[in-house]
Amino acid sequence: MVVDRIFSGIQPTGTPHLGNYLGAIQNWVNLQDECSSVLYSVMDMHSLTMPKEPAVLRQNILDTTAAVLACGIDPKKCFLFRQSLVPEHAELAWILGCLTNVPRLLRLPQWKMKRASQNNEGTVGLLTYPVLQAADILLYKSTHVPVGEDQVLHLELAQDIAQHFNKKYGEFFPVPKAILSRTKKIKSLRDPTVKMSKSDPQKLATINIADSPDEIVLKFRKAVTDFTSEVTYDPDSRPGVSNLVSIHAAVTGLSIKEVLDQAAGLDTAHYKKVVAESVIQKFAPIRNEIKKLQEDKSHLIKVLEDGAEKAKELAAPIYQEIRRLVGFQ
Amino acid sequence: MVVDRIFSGIQPTGTPHLGNYLGAIQNWVNLQDECSSVLYSVMDMHSLTMPKEPAVLRQNILDTTAAVLACGIDPKKCFLFRQSLVPEHAELAWILGCLTNVPRLLRLPQWKMKRASQNNEGTVGLLTYPVLQAADILLYKSTHVPVGEDQVLHLELAQDIAQHFNKKYGEFFPVPKAILSRTKKIKSLRDPTVKMSKSDPQKLATINIADSPDEIVLKFRKAVTDFTSEVTYDPDSRPGVSNLVSIHAAVTGLSIKEVLDQAAGLDTAHYKKVVAESVIQKFAPIRNEIKKLQEDKSHLIKVLEDGAEKAKELAAPIYQEIRRLVGFQ
Repeated sequence: MVVDRIFSGIQPTGTPHLGNYLGAIQNWVNLQDECSSVLYSVMDMHSLTMPKEPAVLRQNILDTTAAVLACGIDPKKCFLFRQSLVPEHAELAWILGCLTNVPRLLRLPQWKMKRASQNNEGTVGLLTYPVLQAADILLYKSTHVPVGEDQVLHLELAQDIAQHFNKKYGEFFPVPKAILSRTKKIKSLRDPTVKMSKSDPQKLATINIADSPDEIVLKFRKAVTDFTSEVTYDPDSRPGVSNLVSIHAAVTGLSIKEVLDQAAGLDTAHYKKVVAESVIQKFAPIRNEIKKLQEDKSHLIKVLEDGAEKAKELAAPIYQEIRRLVGFQ
Repeated sequence: MVVDRIFSGIQPTGTPHLGNYLGAIQNWVNLQDECSSVLYSVMDMHSLTMPKEPAVLRQNILDTTAAVLACGIDPKKCFLFRQSLVPEHAELAWILGCLTNVPRLLRLPQWKMKRASQNNEGTVGLLTYPVLQAADILLYKSTHVPVGEDQVLHLELAQDIAQHFNKKYGEFFPVPKAILSRTKKIKSLRDPTVKMSKSDPQKLATINIADSPDEIVLKFRKAVTDFTSEVTYDPDSRPGVSNLVSIHAAVTGLSIKEVLDQAAGLDTAHYKKVVAESVIQKFAPIRNEIKKLQEDKSHLIKVLEDGAEKAKELAAPIYQEIRRLVGFQ
């Protein structure tokens, strides 16, 4: 795989949960060592698509930044930056929006799902954020984008927009390719048929990576499994215990088979303690680092600003060329 | 009328026609003397909402700029600038789009009308340009906006967005008021029931302000009137001749009554020559000036860049405050 430039973004929802970490952040940490040009953006513009209190957003941006740094994202190996500090994201989104048909956006599942929570109306931001995502990626001529399954349709849109632009204005954008996460989707601990989510109203459903050891033990103890006590891996017929096995494998770096071998002879009650312990072990140093980083707000702000400076240096000549191509100069 | 700041924009469609001049540009020239803070923008971002060849757009921007300068827009009295050189327009449009419901935009007549020409699909740019218009106005905390009748609904949208923002984030934007043009809408010379338009396929329907005297005489000679030879003013029952009377009054600065007194005893064939002559007189110096300005491309570019510098100085602190209010910093 020839990877020239990777772009990815994280919504600033505060400290990430276990699913965010295993599905995305862990992968980010690996990718920054594998590719020489990597951009990770804290997507504050995207976060306006669902109503936010300004003070909450402000705090979430800092908490998200502290968390990704604590997880091992290294601003020396990648550009970690705040999206809204690079005006070219919005500017390119306007241009790309003039190449994107509205009916295509109206058909996207995320629009249909999320507008239900906005009195079935839905804002322009909510409808058009996949176009902003395309701009996020294409602004840097990114070649690869780590995506989860729920973002595949949005990446396809970005690919089509890139091709449409190239056809209209001449070959310019690489068509960005997906890097699919190898980790299984982590499920809710209270309902293993849905994915783990920050906004789950059930507090025990979601492990936050800064949770205390006591909270982690409690949440795993209360995790919904079934009435079979043996530990097996069968996501379809035994989603609860299989989710525990997936988490166990992901945090230890072992295979599903290795994890099952270790669990041989344990009942699910005991196994929950083992999994909780592996999660506690994994996140103890990260949790300490998050706390330390959160105390130095001005350092976090500076990291995002320095990253934005470097991202702008990369974006500016590309956007200048786009301006020339479309006839803006 | 207390006017603190006026904002208006013109689409770069090339040299304006008589309807553009009488409906908008003439009014712009007056307003720059009446108000101390006036911004006029050449809206290149908006022009992408309908397909454009880059080379055509590039030329049109220069021609439009030459024309408004020749008509008397004075960069010492106002900020004349190219929209796409001030990134805050796109940035603010994103924020305001997160406060604007999609169904409201889907109901606007211009969307319904214009998407018909895009295979009934319609782009994001075409759907959301009224939000960009709101950003254009609000970015400068403008208090007044000269608008034609067809823009009234869009200004209402900008007013509602301003109020929505103020309610959510605290009193910030003045709610911009309309300055309605006093000039009657100028109609097509070939079909006096529709307005004069740049895109009219009938070449004789539209007077370009840089047309030669011969072209002007020809177009008026071929103007559609009716079988009554007397010159009267009754737009409903005699739209053709009434349009000529409106044009005559507007270019001479006389009232309808004064113009009719002058036309007493003339038949429409003779009257067409009188109107043509008045138009030739009015635009002869402007036509010369346009030609002169068009020869100095770098001067035109510099005017738009200098204007953009000044517009940015005005916009930057306002947008910084908006960033703070929404939680971007």
